[in-house]
Amino acid sequence: MEEEKLEKSFILELATKRVSIRKFSKKKISFKKILRILEVARQAPSGANTQPWRFIIIDDLKLKKNIRKICEKIEKNFHKKAPLWLKNWLKNNKISYSKPFLIEAPYLIIVISNKKFPYYKESTWIAIGYMLLAIEEIGLATLTYTPSNTEFLKRILNIPYNYSLEAILPIGYPLEKKNKDRKKLSEIIFYNKYGLSFSI
Amino acid sequence: MEEEKLEKSFILELATKRVSIRKFSKKKISFKKILRILEVARQAPSGANTQPWRFIIIDDLKLKKNIRKICEKIEKNFHKKAPLWLKNWLKNNKISYSKPFLIEAPYLIIVISNKKFPYYKESTWIAIGYMLLAIEEIGLATLTYTPSNTEFLKRILNIPYNYSLEAILPIGYPLEKKNKDRKKLSEIIFYNKYGLSFSI
Repeated sequence: MEEEKLEKSFILELATKRVSIRKFSKKKISFKKILRILEVARQAPSGANTQPWRFIIIDDLKLKKNIRKICEKIEKNFHKKAPLWLKNWLKNNKISYSKPFLIEAPYLIIVISNKKFPYYKESTWIAIGYMLLAIEEIGLATLTYTPSNTEFLKRILNIPYNYSLEAILPIGYPLEKKNKDRKKLSEIIFYNKYGLSFSI
Repeated sequence: MEEEKLEKSFILELATKRVSIRKFSKKKISFKKILRILEVARQAPSGANTQPWRFIIIDDLKLKKNIRKICEKIEKNFHKKAPLWLKNWLKNNKISYSKPFLIEAPYLIIVISNKKFPYYKESTWIAIGYMLLAIEEIGLATLTYTPSNTEFLKRILNIPYNYSLEAILPIGYPLEKKNKDRKKLSEIIFYNKYGLSFSI
């Protein structure tokens, strides 16, 4: 292991700074920023280059209210049935079934993916990874929210049956600060076989 | 839609430049670069912050040869059974069952994910999206290769049954140039409902 010093990494800086945000300012967002985020998503690789992703940009308040209503109904049910460890995590992180971010964020980006293509889910979440860094870069915030049931949403958004609704990304300026908590690198890497760790 | 001009985006530049590479130089890589890539992955968000990902860094040639042997056996079978459109795509892109990149790239990063956690797959592929941009930033190349069957690999790498093998990322310096081909932005975005397009 040589002593070469690496250059500063912009990606590492962005990735480290970025946290999931659930409280958004109602401050308007330039539509160009939304397009920028999707320009980045568009560049992601995909299984056999099928580009299975599609994006629905939502800014209609009535529609956002409807989406919120549907999601909260679904989440109320989900929170009741969640396993104990998850219930505790949700409580400790003050996450309830209530999803005000679905109307507070000026835009929602609904990410859907065509299930008939190989590795459609994997490809689409690579694109979402790209989007998260692009969103951070332009000073906006988001979280990836996947409702525990998506059938009703698909219906009101006219999403065809062969698409899965992968995530809703509310896009806005952050209205909260949050700390980050991650495992150490040495806890998540192994050398040549699972279980073989090495000191860094 | 206001006339504000956005600043240049480093993320967009990296994402646009990045292509999947299957031919690697045998030139050595600083181990620090491998750690840098994983430092970036470590920062990704995950369902209930469970960080379901683990990474096995492989540089042992004997092990790489064994992995290649197993993968080629699996892919030979897969290529035979692939649907016609995929067979054609593979042929047009000169992709055969042969996987020399598994020994040519100095490192393989095996990405595994704990299936017991919510959204383990989604979270892990966000982390992989982060990694792809980090790899591009430091001048290296990769592709996300997911064997069509992972049972034998899991066995030789001691990967526990509750983990899924999500991808193998060969990491090296690129030995080929490739063009990119992506749908236009207007082909992949809709406004408020699926099917409602708008001119940009």
